[in-house]
Amino acid sequence: MDRLPGFRDFYPEPLPHPDVWSADARQYIFDKWRTMARRYGFREYDGPPLEPLELYTLKSGEEIVAQLYNFTDKGQREIALRPEMTPTLARMVAAHERNYKKPIKWFAIPQLFRYERHQKGRLREHFQFNADIFGEADVAADAELIALLIDTLRSFGLTAKDFVIRLSSRNAWQEFFTQRCPDPGKANEFYQIIDKLEREDPAQSREKLARLGFSLDEISAFIKTGQPTTELEAVLKNLSARGLSEFVRVDYQVIRGLAYYTGVVFEAFDQQGEFRAIAGGGRYDNLVKLISGGKVNLPALGFGFGDVVLLELLKARGLLPKFDGALDAFCLIEDESLRPESLKLITDLRASGLAIDYALTPAKPDKQFKRAQEMKAARTIKLERTPAGELSARIKDLRTREEKACAPAEAAQVLGK
Amino acid sequence: MDRLPGFRDFYPEPLPHPDVWSADARQYIFDKWRTMARRYGFREYDGPPLEPLELYTLKSGEEIVAQLYNFTDKGQREIALRPEMTPTLARMVAAHERNYKKPIKWFAIPQLFRYERHQKGRLREHFQFNADIFGEADVAADAELIALLIDTLRSFGLTAKDFVIRLSSRNAWQEFFTQRCPDPGKANEFYQIIDKLEREDPAQSREKLARLGFSLDEISAFIKTGQPTTELEAVLKNLSARGLSEFVRVDYQVIRGLAYYTGVVFEAFDQQGEFRAIAGGGRYDNLVKLISGGKVNLPALGFGFGDVVLLELLKARGLLPKFDGALDAFCLIEDESLRPESLKLITDLRASGLAIDYALTPAKPDKQFKRAQEMKAARTIKLERTPAGELSARIKDLRTREEKACAPAEAAQVLGK
Repeated sequence: MDRLPGFRDFYPEPLPHPDVWSADARQYIFDKWRTMARRYGFREYDGPPLEPLELYTLKSGEEIVAQLYNFTDKGQREIALRPEMTPTLARMVAAHERNYKKPIKWFAIPQLFRYERHQKGRLREHFQFNADIFGEADVAADAELIALLIDTLRSFGLTAKDFVIRLSSRNAWQEFFTQRCPDPGKANEFYQIIDKLEREDPAQSREKLARLGFSLDEISAFIKTGQPTTELEAVLKNLSARGLSEFVRVDYQVIRGLAYYTGVVFEAFDQQGEFRAIAGGGRYDNLVKLISGGKVNLPALGFGFGDVVLLELLKARGLLPKFDGALDAFCLIEDESLRPESLKLITDLRASGLAIDYALTPAKPDKQFKRAQEMKAARTIKLERTPAGELSARIKDLRTREEKACAPAEAAQVLGK
Repeated sequence: MDRLPGFRDFYPEPLPHPDVWSADARQYIFDKWRTMARRYGFREYDGPPLEPLELYTLKSGEEIVAQLYNFTDKGQREIALRPEMTPTLARMVAAHERNYKKPIKWFAIPQLFRYERHQKGRLREHFQFNADIFGEADVAADAELIALLIDTLRSFGLTAKDFVIRLSSRNAWQEFFTQRCPDPGKANEFYQIIDKLEREDPAQSREKLARLGFSLDEISAFIKTGQPTTELEAVLKNLSARGLSEFVRVDYQVIRGLAYYTGVVFEAFDQQGEFRAIAGGGRYDNLVKLISGGKVNLPALGFGFGDVVLLELLKARGLLPKFDGALDAFCLIEDESLRPESLKLITDLRASGLAIDYALTPAKPDKQFKRAQEMKAARTIKLERTPAGELSARIKDLRTREEKACAPAEAAQVLGK
């Protein structure tokens, strides 16, 4: 029986098949995400992987349903597997923001889902690092969020040669739109065309824009020559103070497709232009009000940073480590009469924080040693009886082949804990 | 708009409302689970949260559907949100076991789902630590798995006064059944009645058992006086060698409800009998063969250990820590002309591994200091200009009120990284 199309199985490395994913690499990425968020003072939250369908249609309109993994549950409720985290977060913040001092800095690592038909081979789920700030209207918050994104990318070993944050302004685009089109109801359609400019056939974009009364040429000119807004200048200055200028540049090509952005927007791209956007985000000052039915009004901003493009990029740049079980030692039991004492030693070593494995059942010494090597154990440890009848632990470093003996009670210390 | 009934929102502590759950406590539990699994040499895996419905009906029959969170997807597939991890794991192991040396020791921390109607207030999801061993028929594997469960419970500060592993044998029960009933098709029904004995009205159990041709009295007698099987003796001896005897006792009351168990079974309970089972598991030597359609045959065993009962128990025993943002320092910016230099310092401190926060926008010194205290920062750090015009970092310990000054470049070291 197979898994569902578009879903992933995560196996321990080394991977048994090109069709499966690494659980070790996934955890490596999650650990870096969580570590950097905490260094920046972000606190973790999570919500349900399922939400009422309405939470998404409210914000994005009924068209969104075509891309959702939605269904009717046994209680006849219209349900969707979450396609993004922001509506859940806005719901959670709106419900209890009074109990938290502002600014609220929160992060999550949700699994997200979509269901587009006719997209064979495309993933229907991914994981995403989400970081958001609530209750701060100043662009100092935008700079803080972008700095977190930059530092997180750097924590994987990526440099300014590998990625760049393209910074833009929904405000600038809104002004551009308003000066040329009297119908604000068409703004979202306009933003979506701009969002697709880089990926779409220019003739098609030109036609779509013309239908809204815009010329592709004036838009191309604005993208090329538009001056940074005051807010963008302030973000650049803030990032410059941090020493992060080389990682960011203003680029009005970026606009973000989703309807709810209101100010600074940004996307992280690989410098060689091989991959889709690595991450993206921006300000969405009106969303909490919308989701809370007008009860709570808080400025907000955030980004989403998925695992799939990041993995592709890290692999392509040779920055993804190889993983093994990270065993501190493999305990050899060559003398079966010492199995009870060996089990006690193993228990004690594990209790002291060491990762230890051993042969569950009697096996020849060379087979046990081979197993220790296969598992990439750092060392072997084995109990021996001295001529005086006392127990001694013999520890061998599998890299240096160096050996030493010690009392069993000292083994944890010798092994480094 | 509310979340769906039976689902949880996880917030940072301190919690804003009794109706929400702690994201910090959740992560604390996940960290302990992951740490202990690794010390025991278990490798992490994960599968999709959604599987074909058939994966569960195959194993447990059509009755299981009443308890599943299942639905029809847009591609007209019959889908279920995973109610347990074992079928997914058996599917994954069957697909690629040839690439892994035996025994395979794997763990996962999946979110699991169920949908029973008419269960108001009952959770429809929880998280579960799953650890399994494949490819080892000897009870040494059962002992290893039970030792992991015991050590994981101990890692939360729980002692032999708090919990006990009740050890039983599906083999012993099967023998009991076979000697008295000629119809193996009724075995599962029998096991389920035994599984519910402790929770059900005795009159009802008596009647159900009588219908299968059993007397409640002979079953009570077997539970009281049944002798440990050879396999249980071996498990007890193994655990005794590890010094873990006090955490385990044979108790034939335990049988495990699920159909697929084949050998040693066990459940962890709190010693005061206040809560439902904390964890449970056992051998399921035939499941891989069933799931793989006969292609792969591997002995197997595992346990599931949920987050909800564990949380209740840790709270009741006062063993759940209070969590805060664990900030190493809060950077005070009292002189706004030093904001750029402060931003640089903050960036450098974070890069050195420290968790740092600060006021995003200008604020009065006392307000900043109050914020540092509210966030439970360990220390404050602030840049000052010396009379000679050089920058100095003043670090204050918020517990001891001790202060010291140093060069900004040395601040990370003074702060302990």
